[in-house]
Amino acid sequence: MSLLIVGTVAFDELETPFGKSGKIIGGSGTYAALSASNFVDDIRLTSIIGEDFPQEKIELFHEKGIHTTGIDRIAGGKTFFWKGRYHNDMNTRDTLDTQLNVLEHFDPKVPEAYRDAAFLLLGNLTPAVQLSVLNQMNQRPKLVVLDTMNFWMEVALDGLKEVLKQVDVLTINDEEARQLSEEYSLVKAAKKILDMGPRVLIIKKGEHGALLFNREEVFFAPALPLEEVFDPTGAGDTFAGGFIGYLARTQNISFNNMKRAIIFGSALASFCVEKFGTQRIEHLSSKEIEQRVQAFIELSQVEMELA
Amino acid sequence: MSLLIVGTVAFDELETPFGKSGKIIGGSGTYAALSASNFVDDIRLTSIIGEDFPQEKIELFHEKGIHTTGIDRIAGGKTFFWKGRYHNDMNTRDTLDTQLNVLEHFDPKVPEAYRDAAFLLLGNLTPAVQLSVLNQMNQRPKLVVLDTMNFWMEVALDGLKEVLKQVDVLTINDEEARQLSEEYSLVKAAKKILDMGPRVLIIKKGEHGALLFNREEVFFAPALPLEEVFDPTGAGDTFAGGFIGYLARTQNISFNNMKRAIIFGSALASFCVEKFGTQRIEHLSSKEIEQRVQAFIELSQVEMELA
Repeated sequence: MSLLIVGTVAFDELETPFGKSGKIIGGSGTYAALSASNFVDDIRLTSIIGEDFPQEKIELFHEKGIHTTGIDRIAGGKTFFWKGRYHNDMNTRDTLDTQLNVLEHFDPKVPEAYRDAAFLLLGNLTPAVQLSVLNQMNQRPKLVVLDTMNFWMEVALDGLKEVLKQVDVLTINDEEARQLSEEYSLVKAAKKILDMGPRVLIIKKGEHGALLFNREEVFFAPALPLEEVFDPTGAGDTFAGGFIGYLARTQNISFNNMKRAIIFGSALASFCVEKFGTQRIEHLSSKEIEQRVQAFIELSQVEMELA
Repeated sequence: MSLLIVGTVAFDELETPFGKSGKIIGGSGTYAALSASNFVDDIRLTSIIGEDFPQEKIELFHEKGIHTTGIDRIAGGKTFFWKGRYHNDMNTRDTLDTQLNVLEHFDPKVPEAYRDAAFLLLGNLTPAVQLSVLNQMNQRPKLVVLDTMNFWMEVALDGLKEVLKQVDVLTINDEEARQLSEEYSLVKAAKKILDMGPRVLIIKKGEHGALLFNREEVFFAPALPLEEVFDPTGAGDTFAGGFIGYLARTQNISFNNMKRAIIFGSALASFCVEKFGTQRIEHLSSKEIEQRVQAFIELSQVEMELA
């Protein structure tokens, strides 16, 4: 099944208690597409880069079945760059440098060959760009998943609410769910957010797992307790890419299948944090993924006979 | 199966965003014993109270199969009293008043008829008192569970380490696990803590569920997402009482049965927070408990066929 992903393709430079990454590739589109490429091979990536983006990484995308005609390379331009330092808890970080560069004027033109995609992931970007991509589709995709963050709630809330009306699934973290709904209880927050448009809400809780809500049901997927988180960058995008990639492969968008998709997304995210950047998710075998999914299932498995 | 519980029997006065409780009964021993009474009926409670503790609450204990000959009533003494105010998030609280009263000189004499108990819960108390109770047993109980808190790690760490050497199961929260082990990763923390004595560690994560570790395995039990937490007081003690109560009823202390016991403990704790104090756990039917346990199981249930 065809999957269109819009998101950033960028450079990151990371400092963690374990070391420094140097300048590596990153961005929400990069993580999501590489993650989804473990499930489907017609991935259509839309983004913007500068002249400085390495051609070998474009070739990596091609090897993974990721089309790049929708990646606009700006002659003389520089690629979006983010530099950050993680604290010892690996949950909090400081931004050391942000250079928007070509991203500042990103106004995506979705290639004609992309516009019939059955699945659409609107990766973390300004809501206006997410809406523009959605509006360029030839027909409403079978499933639209939107990822966003607190920053857009602060600077572009109206735009975010506009695009929320048109998506099927929203993925945000617990603090963002509280911010968007102005409710502390996640159950109450979910109700309010589902009233804003999406019929399914995923609340990502990092090391505490993820919750999946629709109007009638709730499902909880645990996170695997890890000995070490080496680099959390991109874990949320990797999760979103794995989630929609699994749904696209299985061509089943029922709530029950979304439960499975969340576990696959969580498994991909658990690989992502094991090394710097995209290193770990670039080279995964289906065997490794299935073993990790099995570990997630066993983690909460209990046999019980009730009267 | 006989279950000996040592813990405080006390007065609490609580203020939450939802209201004020007035002076009600509380204490780790009270919550744990009432919780466990949903599973077994030979519960032997050891504690200390003043002359002001209401006789009707002693009679409530008797109705629930909780023996009180080990509760020392001090003539002319006043019962331990704690007053606290919860913040809007219900996760943090301020202590407004603490009056140790008779608890200051608590040196429990375990009644002869209590000393052959098969199961022992050392509720949250000074480690010296926990050790004294353990040493008064006629023979080593089949299972010893210890609950403690950060306060004892700060003021009585040596005593805590001494008693830890002699228990089977330790229950603490995630921050306490980090404090005790000086490790941020809970997986690493668990390894260090298991080296201190207990063969099983339960890390309580409140709204994020609970982790069960032994040296080989890890199990994760989710928390039920709740619309409203009315009063979190006693949830940890209720969890511990439900956990050991279930093990005592089923007479099975295998790791697999502890998985089930954690779900029963979590279910009891989820009832506890629905009303002020012990109100909700005083009157539960086995039907209500089984339905709640079923909800916990369904929350994480997923059917998946892997290759």
